[in-house]
Formats: sequence, C-alpha cells, structure tokens
Amino acid sequence: MRIARFILLLALVAGGLGCSAALVPSDPLPSWNDGPARSAILALVDAATDESSPAYVAPGERIATFDNDGTLWVEHPLYTQGVFALDRVRALAPEHPEWRTEEPFRSVLTKGEAAISGFHMEDWQKIIAATHTGMSTEAFEQTARRWLGAARDARWDRRYPELVYQPMLEVLQYLRDNEFETFIVSGGGQEFIRVFSDGTYGIPTWKVVGSSVETRWEETERGPALLREPHLFFLDDHQGKPVGINLFIGTRPVAAFGNSGGDREMLEWTTAGGGRRMGMLVLHDDARREYAYGPAEGLPDTHVGRFTQELYDEARRKGWIVVSMRKDWKRIFPWED
Amino acid sequence: MRIARFILLLALVAGGLGCSAALVPSDPLPSWNDGPARSAILALVDAATDESSPAYVAPGERIATFDNDGTLWVEHPLYTQGVFALDRVRALAPEHPEWRTEEPFRSVLTKGEAAISGFHMEDWQKIIAATHTGMSTEAFEQTARRWLGAARDARWDRRYPELVYQPMLEVLQYLRDNEFETFIVSGGGQEFIRVFSDGTYGIPTWKVVGSSVETRWEETERGPALLREPHLFFLDDHQGKPVGINLFIGTRPVAAFGNSGGDREMLEWTTAGGGRRMGMLVLHDDARREYAYGPAEGLPDTHVGRFTQELYDEARRKGWIVVSMRKDWKRIFPWED
Repeated sequence: MRIARFILLLALVAGGLGCSAALVPSDPLPSWNDGPARSAILALVDAATDESSPAYVAPGERIATFDNDGTLWVEHPLYTQGVFALDRVRALAPEHPEWRTEEPFRSVLTKGEAAISGFHMEDWQKIIAATHTGMSTEAFEQTARRWLGAARDARWDRRYPELVYQPMLEVLQYLRDNEFETFIVSGGGQEFIRVFSDGTYGIPTWKVVGSSVETRWEETERGPALLREPHLFFLDDHQGKPVGINLFIGTRPVAAFGNSGGDREMLEWTTAGGGRRMGMLVLHDDARREYAYGPAEGLPDTHVGRFTQELYDEARRKGWIVVSMRKDWKRIFPWED
Repeated sequence: MRIARFILLLALVAGGLGCSAALVPSDPLPSWNDGPARSAILALVDAATDESSPAYVAPGERIATFDNDGTLWVEHPLYTQGVFALDRVRALAPEHPEWRTEEPFRSVLTKGEAAISGFHMEDWQKIIAATHTGMSTEAFEQTARRWLGAARDARWDRRYPELVYQPMLEVLQYLRDNEFETFIVSGGGQEFIRVFSDGTYGIPTWKVVGSSVETRWEETERGPALLREPHLFFLDDHQGKPVGINLFIGTRPVAAFGNSGGDREMLEWTTAGGGRRMGMLVLHDDARREYAYGPAEGLPDTHVGRFTQELYDEARRKGWIVVSMRKDWKRIFPWED
C-alpha cells in the first residue's frame, strides 16, 4: 500500500511538472510594442477567460471578427482581389476579341492598372461579372488558387498571401488559444478569401463571411454543379457586416477588428452589446514599412480602405482603439528579419 | 541516476495507464442495433481517420451535415416551428382584433391545429410574416427561447427539445470525437434552430444553416438593431441545401443525413464529391415508438417530411443508406428507460 501510494505520488508530481512546463508564460504578442492597443487585447482576454470576472464570457460566445483587406493583409495600392480581376481580364482576353473595343476591358488591356483611376462602380461590376461568374464554384476556386499561388506583388515581389500582418496573426492565434472563435468578416468575395484563409490565417471556410454572388444548382451529365451567376447575392460591407454577422455567425462578437469605413457598423454592433466588448481599427501610418493613408495629420486620403476623420472621431468617442502600425507594431510581415 | 530513471519510468507507466484507461474502447453508438446503417457509420469514420487509408480525410474537411426536422428531432404531426407559429398567432391575437375575421388567422383562432389541413403556402407565409417578422433579431430570439422552454407536445407531454433522437445524438458526438465538424442544414428557420441547437445538439449558432428572412440594420435611439423583415431572404430546402452548404460552409460534406425529399439535393451534392462519401436517410417506420410514414409497404404518405418511392429508389441506386427507426434504433429518445 505504501509503495503504491508512493508511486501514485511520483506520478502525480511528474504529471504536474509536465503540466506546468507546458504553461510557462511566453509573450503571446511578440510583434506588438507596449502600448494601449496591446494592453487592451491582453486585458480583454484576461477578463473574458476569468470565471470570477464580471466580464467573463463562456467559450461558445467568445466571438472575434476580423475585416480582411487592410486589417489582416495589405490592401494598397489596390485590393488584391482587384489585381486578380484585372489579371483575369488579361488572361481571358484571347477568348473575347470584343474586349478590344469594349470598355472597361479595352482600358484594362491597353493601360493596365493605370486604367482603374477612372473606373466607376459599374465598370468594376462588369469586370467582376466577366471574371468571377459564369463558371462552377469549383472552377472558380481552382482559378483563384492557382493565381494566389503564383502572382507576385510589385513592391515586395511576394505572393499576396505573404503580405499578411504578423501582429494580427499573433492576435488570431492568441485569441484561439484562449477559446475564442475567430471569423473573417470582409467586404471582399467570400469564395476568394476561402481559398487561402485556412492556410494563411488558420480560419476554415465556414468562418469566412464575405460578399457573394448568386449560385445556381444544375444537374449536368457529369453530375450536379453549382454555377456562379452574374448577380450580387450578398454585399458584406458597411451595414451588411452586422447583417452578415447575424446571418452567418448568429452570435454578437466580443471583439471586432477593422480599418476603414466599411467596418464602422461592425464595430458599432459589436461594442453596443452588453458587457465588455472591444472595437479596434488599424491605422496605416507607416509609409516606410507598408503604406500611409487616413485621418492622422499629413496622411493622404484614399478610396481604397478609406478611414475618415469622422470615423476617427467616433472611435475616440466610443473608446474604440486605433492601432498605429508605425508605433504599435515591431514588425509588419512574418518574413521580415 | 538510477533512482531518477526509476521515477521517470514509474511516471511514464502511470501516465501510460491513465492514457489507455481513457482510451478503453466503448461502444460509440450504444442505441444502434447491428446492421448496415451502424456499420456504414463506423466504417466511414474508420476510413476518414486512418492516414493510411485511401479514404483518409484531413480534419478540416471532415464535414457532416444534418437535416433537423425528422432527422434529429420529431417532425410529426407538424413541424415544431409550425406549432410555435400557431401558438404565436393565439398569443398575439389580442393585439390584432382584425384577425377575428381575417384568414388564415380566423381559422387558427377558431379551429386550432385542425385549421392547417386546408392551408396553402400563402397562408403559411402570412402566419410566418405575422409571427416571425416585424421585431428585432433579439426580440425574436427571446420569444422563441421562452416558447421552447415551456411548450409541451401533446403525445409525450415533453418540451420539444426533448423530442430528439438519441441514436442521432450519438452519431453527432461520435463524429465530433473523431474531429468531424457537424452542421445542421435545415429547411426550417435558421434563427429558430439556433436558439436550442447548442444546448440540445452541441452545435453552435454558426454551424446552423437554415432558411432566413431579410434583416435590416437600423440605428435607433437605444442603439443599433437588426430588424426582421417580412421577406424571405434564403430558402434552405431542396436545391437550396447544396447552395446553402456552399454559401455558409464552403466545403463539400463527407456525410449528409436527411429524411425527406427536401434533403435529396444535399445528398446528391455530398455523394457526388470525390473519394468516399456517405448519404443516409432516416425512415420513420415505427408508429408505436414514434411515427410511421413513407415509401415502405403499408406506410401512409404525408406532406410533413415526405419520403417518396422515387427518393427511395434513388437511394437504392446510389448506395445511400436508409435507416429504419424500427429495426436500427434500440431506443428513440434520450429519456426512454
């Protein structure tokens, strides 16, 4: 009996040591400088996971939503999906001789990305219809996957899924390590983002909320197919973000991360919930390491990821936290030295 | 050194014993009789989780979808959400004196559930609009939650979330224990099911795909709200099921479970995928313990959860498995002795 108890004791001690070794605290946000943004993230997680805290949140309700363009990855000088669409126009041009005279295709083919400065919404609609619809969901996925694996941006000569922000990858992981569910809620195309979200962010397809076109079921000789139709089904931007959160997630977030006016209603919806909530906006104020645009002094305005003074004032008023890429982030990209 | 090694060995042995004690094989499907249905579920999971099998499926792609009405819980004599809607008509009647003369409300108020035999689709649309829309998403959730916690069915005098099938609860748990992701894909109302899906099935709100009405963002004096509008937004039935799977889940299922014609396209989409897939249909052939309707000999046809001979023949042809409640299930409900 004594020996058995001794063995049990040893096993418990050994098990306990193994356990505490795994729990040695390490910095969960190594790419963040000390400051209010880092502190706010740590404090939110501490409170949400502390059962004795009045701000405790049960695991199934620990929802965090992230805009994609400009919040998780680079959006300048043009949204990546826009670059993809223009590349597809060039790739498909041989099958469309009529594009040599038909706008906006003619401009894309002759002027390249310089053409887009004169584009209106309907020009983009034509380009999206021509490049994103008229094929099966599987064919679209394959095309997008091939492009994302090959295309390189002009400034860093990197594949686009490499242009993700290391500090935000750390936030995603830190939240998931604390039983948060992390979702993308993007104005961009849902099926486009789903192609790389799991490999890049660790976010599976069903946790990607985005804009979508109508799909139509068809039974073909080769089996059933879902065909992408040239009609918008759901626009997940501005007011569409809280609507999409309700539709796709069904639980109000505890924390929401964005960077532009399209995220305003998502942050409003999130922080209007009861209890402790957090809204966070990434400010692009680092022209040297990334890009600089927005409401801070001396930064230019932009149509891609617009962060107005009005939104900045609302953030101040409501206690949303503005992340300065320049001051808050030690590094921008995972591959930086 | 020797003592240290001895201690280490003891710890390893003790740890090993603790580990194997937790892994002692126990029957994961105790409410299923031996038979082709039980075997098919076990074989699918064995193959999907065996890295050396050609039918191995990576965890993030182990998707299983379940219809709700008639597949996870009782749908006869009337879908539970229909019972809820009729109860809401009665509850709201004092605020609507015009219903005393206006159909279909007049029939509901005077004839009770007997009224529905004469209803057409547009009658139900009026009832759904009057009882499911015109309020905020939060107000609807509260109303549904209160009703589901109180209302009792006439036959068993149980609350409706108790009328779930124990064998299917076991399948859900067994799949999740093997890193499958379990989703509901129902023709019923998404926001109605989400109220009880986590507590009843262990399925969180974002894994419930269903039919939905439009919601509208409104900034009120008391803060932002999402208002339920009397317009159908998405019908998750028949062809809508694969469309909804693509829209909400974004990955084709490995296994799909249904019980009626509304599930046909979901099973077609699932089993048309490459590799090993499984389609399963629950046949209600147990009038004594539950209800009996469908294509088997002597069973009556029905408009609630219709399982036609044509669907039965397709199941035979395509190797979908038909579960006989009478033969395959040892018990029906969790609370049975």
